[in-house]
Amino acid sequence: MTREDEQVTDRLKDALAGVVGPRNVLTAPDEQVPFVTDWRGAYSGRALAVVRPGSTDEVSRVVGLCAEAGVAVVPQGGNTGMCGGAVPDESGQAVVLSLSRMNRVLSVDPLNLTMTLQAGCVLQVAQQAALEAGRLFPLSLAAQGSCQIGGNISTNAGGINVLRYGNTRDLVLGLEVVLPDGRVWDGLRGLRKDNRGYDLKHLFIGAEGTLGIVTRAVLKLHPAAPSSATAFVGVADPAAAVRLLARLQGACGTHLSAFELIGRKCLDLVVRHRGERDPFEQRHAWYVLMQLAGGGEEATLREGLEQVLADALAAGDADDAIVAGTMAQADGLWRLRETIPEATVANGPAFRSDIAVATADVPAFIEAAAEELAARHPGAEMLCFGHLGDGNLHFNATSPPDGADWPRGVSEAVYPVVERFNGSFSAEHGVGQAKRAELVRYKSAIEIELMRTIKQALDPRGLMNPGKVL
Amino acid sequence: MTREDEQVTDRLKDALAGVVGPRNVLTAPDEQVPFVTDWRGAYSGRALAVVRPGSTDEVSRVVGLCAEAGVAVVPQGGNTGMCGGAVPDESGQAVVLSLSRMNRVLSVDPLNLTMTLQAGCVLQVAQQAALEAGRLFPLSLAAQGSCQIGGNISTNAGGINVLRYGNTRDLVLGLEVVLPDGRVWDGLRGLRKDNRGYDLKHLFIGAEGTLGIVTRAVLKLHPAAPSSATAFVGVADPAAAVRLLARLQGACGTHLSAFELIGRKCLDLVVRHRGERDPFEQRHAWYVLMQLAGGGEEATLREGLEQVLADALAAGDADDAIVAGTMAQADGLWRLRETIPEATVANGPAFRSDIAVATADVPAFIEAAAEELAARHPGAEMLCFGHLGDGNLHFNATSPPDGADWPRGVSEAVYPVVERFNGSFSAEHGVGQAKRAELVRYKSAIEIELMRTIKQALDPRGLMNPGKVL
Repeated sequence: MTREDEQVTDRLKDALAGVVGPRNVLTAPDEQVPFVTDWRGAYSGRALAVVRPGSTDEVSRVVGLCAEAGVAVVPQGGNTGMCGGAVPDESGQAVVLSLSRMNRVLSVDPLNLTMTLQAGCVLQVAQQAALEAGRLFPLSLAAQGSCQIGGNISTNAGGINVLRYGNTRDLVLGLEVVLPDGRVWDGLRGLRKDNRGYDLKHLFIGAEGTLGIVTRAVLKLHPAAPSSATAFVGVADPAAAVRLLARLQGACGTHLSAFELIGRKCLDLVVRHRGERDPFEQRHAWYVLMQLAGGGEEATLREGLEQVLADALAAGDADDAIVAGTMAQADGLWRLRETIPEATVANGPAFRSDIAVATADVPAFIEAAAEELAARHPGAEMLCFGHLGDGNLHFNATSPPDGADWPRGVSEAVYPVVERFNGSFSAEHGVGQAKRAELVRYKSAIEIELMRTIKQALDPRGLMNPGKVL
Repeated sequence: MTREDEQVTDRLKDALAGVVGPRNVLTAPDEQVPFVTDWRGAYSGRALAVVRPGSTDEVSRVVGLCAEAGVAVVPQGGNTGMCGGAVPDESGQAVVLSLSRMNRVLSVDPLNLTMTLQAGCVLQVAQQAALEAGRLFPLSLAAQGSCQIGGNISTNAGGINVLRYGNTRDLVLGLEVVLPDGRVWDGLRGLRKDNRGYDLKHLFIGAEGTLGIVTRAVLKLHPAAPSSATAFVGVADPAAAVRLLARLQGACGTHLSAFELIGRKCLDLVVRHRGERDPFEQRHAWYVLMQLAGGGEEATLREGLEQVLADALAAGDADDAIVAGTMAQADGLWRLRETIPEATVANGPAFRSDIAVATADVPAFIEAAAEELAARHPGAEMLCFGHLGDGNLHFNATSPPDGADWPRGVSEAVYPVVERFNGSFSAEHGVGQAKRAELVRYKSAIEIELMRTIKQALDPRGLMNPGKVL
């Protein structure tokens, strides 16, 4: 860095401190640690400064100052992403802009079924605010205790309720966004219908902060679905699971809220590493965790589920089934699914993926991907689970004994199979810095060109979260 | 037109005929009539030619030829729009590209809950194909017998099922689009989850053909909801209707599929002009048509509805109520709502609007807008009805005796009130050529600039549906 550069940098830091207060401009390396490394420790970088604005106006002025100085900005929510999208690069030339201080629920409108909040609001706080108003904000995922709404929006987060309520994208009605030049686009509307020209909010949703910074949002709520019925079922193979899904869609499709596939090996890991208990006496090759939710009586939902399961057992589409009799039992069954990621970490190194194909293609995909894995990486064990109802699988694998060419080697085995099924190599985790190479490799040239055209049009100087997505 | 221009034009027509066959290039004015005038006769123009391609490849080549010749293209579906978005201008210099020959359902996947079709497929045909597979394609609107899926997508059509299933935008999973230079973007994916970079499809949905031409789509299906319960209720005022909505959301919100407000005067018109019968002995100032839909037993749904209505009658939130006992009765109640547009036409000139505000704001909006109407246009009668559950109203009005400054004068009275409530002057009908002035007047300068930036980036020569939206 030249002397002149240093002067520019110092002037910028002073100006930023003038906007947000000196306490909210972190420049000491030890203070910066939680903001320049992701939660898993998989990605880390350095920052010119970590800035923590307290209002949209402050975000606007911070981004404006950075734009003036030609300094890149890396927006950051709860820093719980899986692809390093909120972590700065090694150059130390970018400002990390943390939304954490903008953490308030601004209003809940139970009649309009909307909720307005600042981007830094923690997901669980948003869920709770909806609940207190007798409504449901259905976005639910493992990191909900620390991830932030702005990050959920910027990555179009998925989670366990997508089957019924859609992705985060489907839950956003309006946005306020600070643009790359610091100006504010006020699209903070709570309208269910608004056809006045291009729908700009969808550009920013899922853009991982590369086109602007989400500062406030109006989210859709749903009527509460107070009754539920949960079952855990042993099945012979993914094809049987898919037939079971078809039965449920036919008989009680409007109530289906979760349909999760769990491979044998995953259940073994939660038993071994998380102290869970296999609910069945017999071992099965695959399992399904399913949930119905509705507004009617719980007994009615449960009877419907039991009827479908009885038919499926008789027809051989299911081999064993437990329907939860109490909420505590249901929670116990859900733990078998929800603790898989931690159990995987406890087990040792693993390749992790987040792929999607059409639901009907899941059995053929798993077979083909497992074959590739066995052929190319003998000794690696498949750890497959995920949201079968959405066609979204975490097709993971333990590291083989030699561990060579790992985990890139496995992605070379698995992603081409995904591509063969016209699927997605990133269903719910985004691209970040982790999957940029895959984006260029597996998306068409026209699609990459269209994305670059959009990026160039909205952020011609490339200052918004550089090195991410594109 | 100079001799040289004429030669260019003739060469283009020949080239187009070479692609789609001479029978599918209409140049005679009488052949062109149905393509250059909208269904209501409100907008008309002229065309250099009407071209009817039969495949994506032909659309691609037609658009490519037009781009080469610098000739504008006006994409057209069923030509049932309300804002003239599919009608060419008076210049006679543009090619109308009709998708009508590309009218096939290509596949239905009941397990993946998706359907793939060509853009020219008529909505009712799509609905029927879903039904035959035991699934529901919930988009439903008055023009469904002739409107086309491509037009529904390009205008983000609304209709009567938005409350439960969302707008057309929410029902699209994948698109194939011919870009302004004739190249094809293949985004025809049936994935529920796909977070690989910017979501391009949302740019084209609702863009009214100004960024490209939708040629094929993958649409979301829903599980069938075979049971329903319908009621028609007399209420004192819109505030009572809103309280009734809150009761329903609380008690059976997960089943609510329609909640329509109908003003007294609208009911009078369908009785007078459509031969319908007022279902009540007493007259009421306002009415609500509501529907629950679900997968359980019909009797259960009806009992739930009856309980809410009994409570509402006791509390004074409803004054009179009929619950349909048979499907025929339900159809009869729906006719009271669905024939309002035709009854309005039969009644004579009227101002029509398509506005949206937050649901809770509907009563205050109606009061304020009615006051403005009375003050500025004495003698005009309010004809207010619409999708209260979505906050979307058709706040219409009969022409006053003098008819001066009509209907622009009424929009000058009503739209500023919409703006005061942070609402939309075009909730479900789009902008087309009808509301371009309003777009610039009521949207922020930044929003208009962002839209123009997108348009400029994707269609720098301005050849796609010029004079529409922007």
